[in-house]
Amino acid sequence: MSLIVMKFGGSSVGSPERMQRVAKRIVERQQEGHKIVVVVSAMGDTTDDLIDQSKLLNPNPPAREMDMLLTTGEQISIALLSMTIHSLGYQAVSYTGWQAGFRTDSVHSKARITDIRPERIFKALDEGNIVVVAGFQAMSEDGEITTLGRGGSDTTAVALAAAIQADLCEIYTDVDGVYSTDPRVVKVARKLNEISYDEMLELAHLGAAVLHPRAVEYAKHNNVCLVVRSSFTQNDGTYVKEEAVMEQGVVVRGIAFDKNVARISIMGVQDIPGVLAKVFGALAKNGIDVDIIVQSGVLDGKADFSFTLSNSDKEKALSVIESIRGEIPFRETSSEDNLVKVSIVGAGMVSNPGVAATMFEAISRIGVSIKMVSTSEIKVSCVINADPLQDVVRALHTAYGLDTNEQVFVGGPQDRR
Amino acid sequence: MSLIVMKFGGSSVGSPERMQRVAKRIVERQQEGHKIVVVVSAMGDTTDDLIDQSKLLNPNPPAREMDMLLTTGEQISIALLSMTIHSLGYQAVSYTGWQAGFRTDSVHSKARITDIRPERIFKALDEGNIVVVAGFQAMSEDGEITTLGRGGSDTTAVALAAAIQADLCEIYTDVDGVYSTDPRVVKVARKLNEISYDEMLELAHLGAAVLHPRAVEYAKHNNVCLVVRSSFTQNDGTYVKEEAVMEQGVVVRGIAFDKNVARISIMGVQDIPGVLAKVFGALAKNGIDVDIIVQSGVLDGKADFSFTLSNSDKEKALSVIESIRGEIPFRETSSEDNLVKVSIVGAGMVSNPGVAATMFEAISRIGVSIKMVSTSEIKVSCVINADPLQDVVRALHTAYGLDTNEQVFVGGPQDRR
Repeated sequence: MSLIVMKFGGSSVGSPERMQRVAKRIVERQQEGHKIVVVVSAMGDTTDDLIDQSKLLNPNPPAREMDMLLTTGEQISIALLSMTIHSLGYQAVSYTGWQAGFRTDSVHSKARITDIRPERIFKALDEGNIVVVAGFQAMSEDGEITTLGRGGSDTTAVALAAAIQADLCEIYTDVDGVYSTDPRVVKVARKLNEISYDEMLELAHLGAAVLHPRAVEYAKHNNVCLVVRSSFTQNDGTYVKEEAVMEQGVVVRGIAFDKNVARISIMGVQDIPGVLAKVFGALAKNGIDVDIIVQSGVLDGKADFSFTLSNSDKEKALSVIESIRGEIPFRETSSEDNLVKVSIVGAGMVSNPGVAATMFEAISRIGVSIKMVSTSEIKVSCVINADPLQDVVRALHTAYGLDTNEQVFVGGPQDRR
Repeated sequence: MSLIVMKFGGSSVGSPERMQRVAKRIVERQQEGHKIVVVVSAMGDTTDDLIDQSKLLNPNPPAREMDMLLTTGEQISIALLSMTIHSLGYQAVSYTGWQAGFRTDSVHSKARITDIRPERIFKALDEGNIVVVAGFQAMSEDGEITTLGRGGSDTTAVALAAAIQADLCEIYTDVDGVYSTDPRVVKVARKLNEISYDEMLELAHLGAAVLHPRAVEYAKHNNVCLVVRSSFTQNDGTYVKEEAVMEQGVVVRGIAFDKNVARISIMGVQDIPGVLAKVFGALAKNGIDVDIIVQSGVLDGKADFSFTLSNSDKEKALSVIESIRGEIPFRETSSEDNLVKVSIVGAGMVSNPGVAATMFEAISRIGVSIKMVSTSEIKVSCVINADPLQDVVRALHTAYGLDTNEQVFVGGPQDRR
């Protein structure tokens, strides 16, 4: 008998039919002989509807009251899901975040978990209940209702799995699992059987939004075995786990990409200490997120550097840079938009020379020029024009042997639970 | 400076415009120099919508999960109302039932208040906040979310007023106050300036549903000064208080009526001990509520008795009675529906002989026959045909001097706070 946390997102419970299907799925899992704790998000558009209601009354509401408002969404979900399980003839009990023992700091709308006291959950499980816990919400030590911010329900599920030492944390979503790249771009994209925490983090940050990065970090830190799977099929899903317990030998696990990228270059900048700090400090102060930063060296006391950012921030960023010209003398700026960032991700990369070279070669072979490059231990990213994106992703998918099942590991995921 | 509890029902906050009007009203009251605690119900149809959602998933949901579900309604209200007060530039803080310190027994859907621990409320008031508390909801000693059942928000307001020793508990509703009778029936119906707890209880039970009887009982028991007033006008409303502190001399305070009344008579019942217990026990077991019961005496060892009940229960009641004919031999039954019960209510009645006689005379003068009579210390009820109801109420209203302002007390309600 295993102890399993099952997490369902808002779209999985967005209608009475879906709620009933989820309830059946939960009951089946219990009937297989497991103890089940369910974490569920607010149904469908509930959270957005509540936000809309609040905006009519106060465009800038206090975070404390927003937490008070939004936590009702998950409370509705847990009550209805618990009732639905009862209607199937099984015992269930729902708990809000504070009832489930989630304690956080007092930072409303993005509170950090400080403690989980799962005594009630254990008691309810021992009494034969399926336990249904509200995601996203908690209580501060002084009794205030708090929320965990974006990706909150994923974090609730993972943190709870760690606190109750669950054998497995299942994240149910509307896709089959984590793919080698976006199946809408490359038809032969393959569902991965497993992926390391670090690889998942890179893929999550790069847009494969099946699992929130914060939850992955929490899982890595607490060594929680995760699986991402579909709430609509019985497929196995993708296991997310420590690299050490995975099959070795895979160099590139997947290919991710970000659209809507723009580049800005500042040329002929006088090379005085603190130049970069001033430029990027000014951008940050204006709420502009910068991604890749490249400085290519200093010539005659002058430097050129480039960075990428979201298309929509480009004009604002250019005017911010113009406004600090007095402090940071430079010759000129140049910019372009309609770019994309393509990245290969794989934990095996660090011990395999020539991985980046294969990427550059595959891209140049189809006549596409690379505008910027950035590397980390498990990732190489290239910025290119948006138009050839599909061709580039397809070429990389093939170049790293991801089209075929060559890299599928021997032994199903069952063996590795 | 007074400490005032202001209670707003669901229709008072049923739209953004209404929510804003309520927020302004609250702020004005604070600006008059008072400390303000607000109790608010779920907005408009929220509770009914939640019930409808639950019925789709489980027609017979566990009461615990229903409490979990329904308490979100008030939580949404308090958050939005608090945000609205903030938008006007004033400090407010919202509390759920459990945060406000409401403790109950564990009887879900109709919990009884066992304790109120208002420390947080006092602290928030001292910090200059308007405190907004969710009506209807509480927490049991073992940390379960409970609700107080029908009229719950009225009870929350009155119980909180008692616990924090408020100077006044204001119940805002969609009518101006308590009237001498239904203004839709008698145009000259007058708003009462004050009424005793006992009179209010009789009027509330008799259909003047501005204030839940349970809340009135709680107020009487704890001597909370209540006022029922409109959330749409600045009128003074009706004060509900201890008879001893009221102006004396009023015999009949108001005239109430119940429509949809049926009568059943059982004639020639063998007068053996326990007959009444068997009949009314059988009716209760079948969920049939009986109102007036009259037994007119025993003749030749046989008794006749009659009772009133709701029109809609009549057929069912007749078949229940038929089914126990074996145990309780009787000659025959008779029944009629389309009746009404008219009642005069007044605490001064007990010390004034002839009050009932005036009623009978006024009714007979317009040619209406009285079918049944029932009396209590502060009430006389007559059952009559439904058709002449308007004429009867008008005649009684005149007969007891309620048409004019004769009975308006000297000195405004301000003087008596």
